[in-house]
Amino acid sequence: MSLNSFGRVFCFSTWGESHGPAIGALVDGCPPGLALSEADIQPWLDRRRPGQNRFTTQRREPDQVRILSGVFEGRTTGTPISLMIDNVDQRTKDYAGIAEAYRPGHADFTYQAKYGLRDWRGSGRASARETASRVAAGAVARLVIPEVAIRAYLVELGGDAIDYAASEDAEIDNNPFFCPDAAAAARWQDLVDDARKAGSSLGAVVECVATGVPAGWGAPLYAKLDSELAAACMSVNAVKGVEIGDGFAAARLSGEDNADAMRAGADGAPRFLSNHAGGVLGGISTGQPVVVRAAFKPTSSILTPQLTVDHLGAEIEIVTKGRHDPCVAIRGAPVIEAMVALVLADQKFLHRAQCGEAR
Amino acid sequence: MSLNSFGRVFCFSTWGESHGPAIGALVDGCPPGLALSEADIQPWLDRRRPGQNRFTTQRREPDQVRILSGVFEGRTTGTPISLMIDNVDQRTKDYAGIAEAYRPGHADFTYQAKYGLRDWRGSGRASARETASRVAAGAVARLVIPEVAIRAYLVELGGDAIDYAASEDAEIDNNPFFCPDAAAAARWQDLVDDARKAGSSLGAVVECVATGVPAGWGAPLYAKLDSELAAACMSVNAVKGVEIGDGFAAARLSGEDNADAMRAGADGAPRFLSNHAGGVLGGISTGQPVVVRAAFKPTSSILTPQLTVDHLGAEIEIVTKGRHDPCVAIRGAPVIEAMVALVLADQKFLHRAQCGEAR
Amino acid sequence: MSLNSFGRVFCFSTWGESHGPAIGALVDGCPPGLALSEADIQPWLDRRRPGQNRFTTQRREPDQVRILSGVFEGRTTGTPISLMIDNVDQRTKDYAGIAEAYRPGHADFTYQAKYGLRDWRGSGRASARETASRVAAGAVARLVIPEVAIRAYLVELGGDAIDYAASEDAEIDNNPFFCPDAAAAARWQDLVDDARKAGSSLGAVVECVATGVPAGWGAPLYAKLDSELAAACMSVNAVKGVEIGDGFAAARLSGEDNADAMRAGADGAPRFLSNHAGGVLGGISTGQPVVVRAAFKPTSSILTPQLTVDHLGAEIEIVTKGRHDPCVAIRGAPVIEAMVALVLADQKFLHRAQCGEAR
Amino acid sequence: MSLNSFGRVFCFSTWGESHGPAIGALVDGCPPGLALSEADIQPWLDRRRPGQNRFTTQRREPDQVRILSGVFEGRTTGTPISLMIDNVDQRTKDYAGIAEAYRPGHADFTYQAKYGLRDWRGSGRASARETASRVAAGAVARLVIPEVAIRAYLVELGGDAIDYAASEDAEIDNNPFFCPDAAAAARWQDLVDDARKAGSSLGAVVECVATGVPAGWGAPLYAKLDSELAAACMSVNAVKGVEIGDGFAAARLSGEDNADAMRAGADGAPRFLSNHAGGVLGGISTGQPVVVRAAFKPTSSILTPQLTVDHLGAEIEIVTKGRHDPCVAIRGAPVIEAMVALVLADQKFLHRAQCGEAR
Repeated sequence: MSLNSFGRVFCFSTWGESHGPAIGALVDGCPPGLALSEADIQPWLDRRRPGQNRFTTQRREPDQVRILSGVFEGRTTGTPISLMIDNVDQRTKDYAGIAEAYRPGHADFTYQAKYGLRDWRGSGRASARETASRVAAGAVARLVIPEVAIRAYLVELGGDAIDYAASEDAEIDNNPFFCPDAAAAARWQDLVDDARKAGSSLGAVVECVATGVPAGWGAPLYAKLDSELAAACMSVNAVKGVEIGDGFAAARLSGEDNADAMRAGADGAPRFLSNHAGGVLGGISTGQPVVVRAAFKPTSSILTPQLTVDHLGAEIEIVTKGRHDPCVAIRGAPVIEAMVALVLADQKFLHRAQCGEAR
Repeated sequence: MSLNSFGRVFCFSTWGESHGPAIGALVDGCPPGLALSEADIQPWLDRRRPGQNRFTTQRREPDQVRILSGVFEGRTTGTPISLMIDNVDQRTKDYAGIAEAYRPGHADFTYQAKYGLRDWRGSGRASARETASRVAAGAVARLVIPEVAIRAYLVELGGDAIDYAASEDAEIDNNPFFCPDAAAAARWQDLVDDARKAGSSLGAVVECVATGVPAGWGAPLYAKLDSELAAACMSVNAVKGVEIGDGFAAARLSGEDNADAMRAGADGAPRFLSNHAGGVLGGISTGQPVVVRAAFKPTSSILTPQLTVDHLGAEIEIVTKGRHDPCVAIRGAPVIEAMVALVLADQKFLHRAQCGEAR
Repeated sequence: MSLNSFGRVFCFSTWGESHGPAIGALVDGCPPGLALSEADIQPWLDRRRPGQNRFTTQRREPDQVRILSGVFEGRTTGTPISLMIDNVDQRTKDYAGIAEAYRPGHADFTYQAKYGLRDWRGSGRASARETASRVAAGAVARLVIPEVAIRAYLVELGGDAIDYAASEDAEIDNNPFFCPDAAAAARWQDLVDDARKAGSSLGAVVECVATGVPAGWGAPLYAKLDSELAAACMSVNAVKGVEIGDGFAAARLSGEDNADAMRAGADGAPRFLSNHAGGVLGGISTGQPVVVRAAFKPTSSILTPQLTVDHLGAEIEIVTKGRHDPCVAIRGAPVIEAMVALVLADQKFLHRAQCGEAR
Repeated sequence: MSLNSFGRVFCFSTWGESHGPAIGALVDGCPPGLALSEADIQPWLDRRRPGQNRFTTQRREPDQVRILSGVFEGRTTGTPISLMIDNVDQRTKDYAGIAEAYRPGHADFTYQAKYGLRDWRGSGRASARETASRVAAGAVARLVIPEVAIRAYLVELGGDAIDYAASEDAEIDNNPFFCPDAAAAARWQDLVDDARKAGSSLGAVVECVATGVPAGWGAPLYAKLDSELAAACMSVNAVKGVEIGDGFAAARLSGEDNADAMRAGADGAPRFLSNHAGGVLGGISTGQPVVVRAAFKPTSSILTPQLTVDHLGAEIEIVTKGRHDPCVAIRGAPVIEAMVALVLADQKFLHRAQCGEAR
């Protein structure tokens, strides 16, 4: 049971460091017979790809994925699918400054404390670059759950929230922030520009909605759908909080306001009058949209000088060069989408394993 | 890999329904030679035990735990520890009304959708009663991590937050709310009384702090310490949100404000000037206190009439009788403590497995 | 991932020591809606139950199983099924001699070496008594695979093999040896009597055949059907070897003699002209009977004096009293049946998870 | 929990097909700080490499391994180690004959039955080529257990057994059969030549001995050391039987003959007078050499015509061309060594997780 894997029956592992020769994902448990080629994966990687505008890191990675196994004549065979993405634009010298110092807010010190050494080049395994592997694996997961549509978007950046009433899905891909609210996107442009110029960084909140999840996926306890989603989101770099449905706001509601009333639905199933639950009750999907939110802290690698210590314990000031996202959460939207897809694919199969397909 | 288990090397499973003959936990991976008797577990169960005041359910359960295996002459043997707690105060007839109807906000509908049948007596497996098993298992976990002290408390109830400046640990066990702020506890008494009398219920936020966790526990990705904590907390009934450290508030900070600056510590290790990170960076503990918050929604079983449907899809109004906690989060504090202990024990051993004890 | 669990999606854990208050099994992943009561489990336990004739241990255990969870109104609910069997006929004083000495061939020394202490009463967790839990769990597994019929029997005892040509299934339950060959059973009666009187013990080989397994269960590598069966059988006390199909004899065949030729079958599927493969090719079931054999060593607890050492390293002679099976393999037949059922139930669901039910 | 993984805390996964672009292994849970380069892995791959003499397949694969992650400045970092081996000498056309027909004894039919399609090129995932990935992963495992020495060799080929009295380790690498008995190796040369010329194939038995395993590795049940070894060996292509210590022969011994008597050892630990147990009692290592034997069936791909059916169910005769090992077991010796190393590394860490390093 690898420390770098996720999932129970549909599962994946990732490997690779930011400045190693390549990164990759190994997807297992994929059903046979699915049409799969690099062209099914590449568009999702392209959405996450850095260097496409001034609001993300300027590292230029083509992020071309190769399928090395598990596909034959354009179809999955049921055997493990090895996905590899070469690293091509490393600038290791930019990181020389952190080889022997710990950036505040970053994993430098903890890796050193745990392992006694670390690959400091481009932050090694702790780099957000690892999330490209997740997106590649997530693209395979999407094929497994064609009944589900997943979209993630930013609902807040640097503390500035969208207006849900003024938001629409069509807007999400119209701006560099995966922002459904055009007015907010315009404001965020200034926010991010200002942060970047100031040598600072910003956090943000990503919301992800999965529609089409039938009632019944999940498990009552421990392997609850919401528990798996929480683990999945919190496993992404820089995420510090996860909510399902109303999340922390639910703690401020009365019992009658929080509960989602039910009326008779068209097909005998209940029709819910609200979705405070975020599509999950008792760990199991309700059939309503599954709603997850993840809070990303601001990027830790910033130009503003910070107090820290070096390997020998000496007190220093550090300025982090290199090419960094001023708001790592922006590219987090495709990553959270991928993680939600990976959880749902796994849960679909877990449900099928125990309960069969009939119900 | 059971759907009702948690943990990788130090792990546990729970079983049992609210109105079955008993509930229990099976703890595996416990080291040999630890002094363990029922007396080590009972005090923790007593803290969570219902019926001790008017702010919790009036169900009277002695919650007497028995150790059925894994202990010999007062010491753990390294074999699985089976813990059992008899159910003694069921009143199944109180629940007859929900046998064929779905309470809004509860798991009735989703269990039915998943399994096609459900044990509706006392909410079956979905009852908060299951959390007694977690507390029992958690008591064993505490023995495994004597270097760590864990305390959980409510920081907000019904939207009314504590004043951290006026809080102290010593107060936590002085009131029925695990509230560290005496003034808040006094206010909450009225809040909960009012909700109970109104046939309503309240949510709350539990904060848990683990001190003494050395730097180095956790893993970079997927099995990150924070990811495991998120899964653990979200696996508890009624939890809808989890935060580590500043959590969602971190998303509103600038990079320089969020990062915890370091200065030279007494023993060569860094001394952090703040703890926005909640003791976890890059999935690995920093040596600072580990800080987790869990948001509990208000109890779904309330006397206020609610719109819903029955098994046949007919529209009805439902009033939930039975004995319920007006704020299930109150007894959630010992449960979150237990889950944090269980995660930390597992992470301690995972670290020892890979990296040995020397570092 | 417990050290005392088996299975991936349909899985179980066992707990308990020979002279503790009880033993038990926790079954998870069971589908909902199956008719299940103690009466479905008890007959299988009765087949394994000791004390029924002079060829097994004289310990008298009723082995009455109780279902403590996971069943409601006679049907499984999909939640964990807790099975408990009380220990009622312990005679701990019989074992005082081994509290501080290591029986040759037994686990006394290794438990001590691993854990630094051990529950020596009735051999603790290492007792064959643990296998009752397996049989109880296996009875649940059988309900999950109604399409499969499983029968295990002894094919060799004390080196004396059955005559396959003279064997028939109907004979298996006609003698105390689960022996399909009446003449062999008669001979074995003398063999076991002689060994018992001589204070010695005998080993045996159990063969298990599962018919009705459809083609397609299993996995190509690592989680191969045969690999899982090997692990399952070797996890049983006293088993030292496992074979699938021709097993070791296959290593002596030529390629053309070992391969099972195929002809057109009635329904389009191939019809095999032989079954050297034991129903498994490439880790996946062929649709032919699955054939497994397990070699049990002779019981280690014998009256014949043996050279050994005590806890302090002093050289002693040991004579093992207590009530022991002169041939523990006899009662191993129902245990191997249970383990095969448990593996097949798990593999059925794993296949359904990945490939669905259609194929 | 991938179907293509093995291990619990030190674990690995493999991927790749015989005629895909590459194969690989992903190793996780490796401790940090170990010196590791391709030069540590390559010699083990070279021992398994095909085409080195006329007794193995003539496919010419350099089997050059590349380390793509998890190593920095020549040391492991504790993050996943991705190992890749390019396939360079595929001749897919040789396999056209099996694209629509099922070779007897091979996995063609079962893959088709399970997945509904298969990568028939060079037998796809079912090719013995996959075992190169195991050997690469095993080379990393060896670094984790420097206290253990592992050697595997053939003890029987085509039914012709070695003379243990005439065997010595130094001979193992002196002949192309990993045979410790020079006289047997000479006889086997003729046996294999004859089989190859006859268009037939042979099976063999590989024995593996691990010395230096301290007492205490393993677990009492389910995750027993012997159970894990059995699963590991049986997961290798063509293996049909596994024995620990005396294995099936133990079933023919009396209790007093099978038990390994103990005398006082030099350092307070017992000294065993024999090793019928093969170094494992009660699932836990005794400190004696761990002895495992695996029976390999004869290669299924042979030139001798065989009766079979094609995809449409039509009865045909098949002759398997391509380049095949006349005795796949020969190259199985390095593979079994690797699997034993992988199991022992995992067990070492599992023991350390639960019991610490002190004992």
